[in-house]
Amino acid sequence: MSAPRAATPGPVPGEALHGRALELELGSSTQTSHRLLAYSDALLSIIATVMILPVAHTKIHPDQKLGESVQQLLLTKIAVYLMTFLIVTVAWAAHVRLFQVIELIDDVLALLNLACMMIITFLPYTFSLMASFPGVPFGIFLFSVCAVVIGLIQAVIVLYGFYHPHLLNQQIQVSENQNFYKRHILKIILRGPILCFLAAVFSFVFIPLSYVLLGLVIVFPHLSRFITWCKTKILGQRNEEEEHHSLETFSFYLSEPLSKERVEAFSDGVYAIVATLLILDICEDNVPDPREVREKFHGSLLEALSEYGPNYLAYFGSFVTIGLLWFVHHSLFLYVTKATRLMGLLNILSLAFIGGLPLAYQLTSEFAEKSHNEIEAIQVSCVITFFASIFQFAIWTTALLHERETLHLFARYGGKEHAFMFAKLALYPCVSLGAFFLTCLLSEFSTEIFHLMQIVIPFAFLALRIFVRISLTLIKSVMSLSRRKVVLLEEEEACLSPTDTLS
Amino acid sequence: MSAPRAATPGPVPGEALHGRALELELGSSTQTSHRLLAYSDALLSIIATVMILPVAHTKIHPDQKLGESVQQLLLTKIAVYLMTFLIVTVAWAAHVRLFQVIELIDDVLALLNLACMMIITFLPYTFSLMASFPGVPFGIFLFSVCAVVIGLIQAVIVLYGFYHPHLLNQQIQVSENQNFYKRHILKIILRGPILCFLAAVFSFVFIPLSYVLLGLVIVFPHLSRFITWCKTKILGQRNEEEEHHSLETFSFYLSEPLSKERVEAFSDGVYAIVATLLILDICEDNVPDPREVREKFHGSLLEALSEYGPNYLAYFGSFVTIGLLWFVHHSLFLYVTKATRLMGLLNILSLAFIGGLPLAYQLTSEFAEKSHNEIEAIQVSCVITFFASIFQFAIWTTALLHERETLHLFARYGGKEHAFMFAKLALYPCVSLGAFFLTCLLSEFSTEIFHLMQIVIPFAFLALRIFVRISLTLIKSVMSLSRRKVVLLEEEEACLSPTDTLS
Repeated sequence: MSAPRAATPGPVPGEALHGRALELELGSSTQTSHRLLAYSDALLSIIATVMILPVAHTKIHPDQKLGESVQQLLLTKIAVYLMTFLIVTVAWAAHVRLFQVIELIDDVLALLNLACMMIITFLPYTFSLMASFPGVPFGIFLFSVCAVVIGLIQAVIVLYGFYHPHLLNQQIQVSENQNFYKRHILKIILRGPILCFLAAVFSFVFIPLSYVLLGLVIVFPHLSRFITWCKTKILGQRNEEEEHHSLETFSFYLSEPLSKERVEAFSDGVYAIVATLLILDICEDNVPDPREVREKFHGSLLEALSEYGPNYLAYFGSFVTIGLLWFVHHSLFLYVTKATRLMGLLNILSLAFIGGLPLAYQLTSEFAEKSHNEIEAIQVSCVITFFASIFQFAIWTTALLHERETLHLFARYGGKEHAFMFAKLALYPCVSLGAFFLTCLLSEFSTEIFHLMQIVIPFAFLALRIFVRISLTLIKSVMSLSRRKVVLLEEEEACLSPTDTLS
Repeated sequence: MSAPRAATPGPVPGEALHGRALELELGSSTQTSHRLLAYSDALLSIIATVMILPVAHTKIHPDQKLGESVQQLLLTKIAVYLMTFLIVTVAWAAHVRLFQVIELIDDVLALLNLACMMIITFLPYTFSLMASFPGVPFGIFLFSVCAVVIGLIQAVIVLYGFYHPHLLNQQIQVSENQNFYKRHILKIILRGPILCFLAAVFSFVFIPLSYVLLGLVIVFPHLSRFITWCKTKILGQRNEEEEHHSLETFSFYLSEPLSKERVEAFSDGVYAIVATLLILDICEDNVPDPREVREKFHGSLLEALSEYGPNYLAYFGSFVTIGLLWFVHHSLFLYVTKATRLMGLLNILSLAFIGGLPLAYQLTSEFAEKSHNEIEAIQVSCVITFFASIFQFAIWTTALLHERETLHLFARYGGKEHAFMFAKLALYPCVSLGAFFLTCLLSEFSTEIFHLMQIVIPFAFLALRIFVRISLTLIKSVMSLSRRKVVLLEEEEACLSPTDTLS
């Protein structure tokens, strides 16, 4: 009895069982892609986020005003982080698309995918070269070569998949015009590499143009989407019909534009790596030197450690922030039934700021020094937290715009769950904004305000449900008096014309 | 139609649907624990592995013979890594147990779990203190306090779960003696913290004793298992009956001693973080200084980069090794239907060596220097790879011992898939062992041998299936001649006594 249970790790029961049936039929050479995708998500999310470490490790001396050279170095590293993050998310989105088409894998595909991952993990290095030598074409050239190779490997995966049709999505398997699908997915996958190829060619002629082309790689998917959206709005009815036609042919794309499971897996990876990077710094910087303890603190370890007090506070504060933001994200995606592209974009923007949190930790952990950078550090932390949480809030509002498709029944407008979700999502933006303005007003107590905020928030989350319940019952009891009359009137109407009220 | 699909991310179709039904019934305050567990697995696997970074970053000057002070430092750091890894895996195993009992979560449980994770991520720091100040009781005390707090939080989770029985495993929900289960799971969870509490008390009296107690925390689960196993072997029949009795009451434990999904998720996390840690080093160490490029290489970036050639080779080599070991692990667990405790232990040992691979990379990336540490570095790499892969092989042999319970039908003794799996698992141990002895014999060509090995292996994996097929057909064709006579004889027998052959 337990054998078939363990054999279906696929997230969708129906499809997993289908995969299982196929697997048995073909022997084990064909496998469900579930674990391969989970591993790829983990790799991609870590590689997207890990480049914040060099940013966070740029040591700024507490007494040093942020000088030009330090600022330059910091900006370069932040640019590398952001470019890596955005490019990796583009590669991730293409990967999601690819494995929506190819649902089962075999050994060859697994090895090809690993080769693809290997080159993606190499991308941050090409960015580091680009950022250090912005005027030398070699950095761009190397990056473009990597991107082209990634595109080629993915194209080989597509061709292999269509050559062995039993690996494909069932909807495509039974479709009559497989070639059409093949061309479409190849177009999506090779779009970026072709732009990169052009960038590589132009890098030897006119470098700024190749930078523009690289920027286009990131913006292109959203840009093309935005243009079609504008077209539909301007041209109106006629285009809608056309879109309806293409909707039929691409129904399997539109039914779940980004796989919700993979959005969750990617986000989990980012949250997990950010939460754990913090302890590395603690372990490397905050273990006192045995000799120093002997000489300076007369052998008392406790005394030596008490110097690091603010660092521990900053560590736990940052961990709590990341943990709770994950918690909000988790709650939000429990209500969401599928992720649209816009929601995916907002999620990625939110994650980019989450990735910045180790920087916030590094800045706030220097509190003990009481330097004049202190308020700035707290304000940067508040801003990062604010943006990370406000983009989460934006995901929720976007989901509400199409609530029939994207939200569970019980989470839609009105009702207790809706109000509760709203309160959960609004908590962090409000508190971080409040802390920001308070530090502007009461600059002397900025440290205390910031730590108070970090300590209070977890309890606020626990008390939130009770708070929402009380306020809802208050609202209801106030409204029930006025509503009772309306209900009586409606019931009378219903008696008079029952068919009308049913529609 | 798509709403219920997306709402069931649980790995097991039946249970997920059950959870879904419950979820709808109770509103969204009750949630499936799937994503919480995935996030916890990611956190725990990263925190287990990340402490290899300080080990790998210990710079050893190429001309310096491994001096005493460096050796001391390296040993300290390796000890921290191993202790962290083992303790975190113990905590992970307890976590798996805990959430086998509690299957659904709500907001309170999610927050409690996050608090638990926060303290677990702090453990590496306590180990760093212990390793730097082995004679001071404070390090042990701090660790023990953390462990006790973790235990208390988990106990609160258990009590909360049993107070809200709809969150529990269905089998326990319908069971009559819930209190028995409650006591049993509390005993499992609090076993470690109680030992740690004793260690904390003894740390102020007699430190060596508290170290022994801490060691016991890691060994205890396996030790108790081993003792009961020995008892059964020695006392024989009588105890088997007793075990049969306990087997009935704990059937939900024994049906899947370690959740296979969570073993996979934890392993994926370790492989992913190890594969991506490598690029961090490349980005920090191998971007040349712009000034140096101008002065030393006359502005030629390509020339400056060519100096790092061996580093790139080492990077790709290490990535390929990790990727392929993941691939073998992936193939292995496709055949496995459930993970026994011994398999879990072997898997953790394998992962501990995988975590050591960044160290191997650091060692082998210094090839360019042609120092006298070179052969040692290659041999260390070979040894790490060998142990990582031989423990994978051991998982397979252990699974074969109980193949009825642990393996899919098509992967059992005999048959093409079995031979293929065997070849896959044997490849890395053989090659790394071969490379090790070749470097002993041909010490001059050790670098070349090592790189050749890393380049050849991916192609070996691709060709493996063909190779196995050819050798199997050869064996079959040789054997078919001799077998034909046997078959004829058997058929004659079958005609004589048809009922006997059926049984």
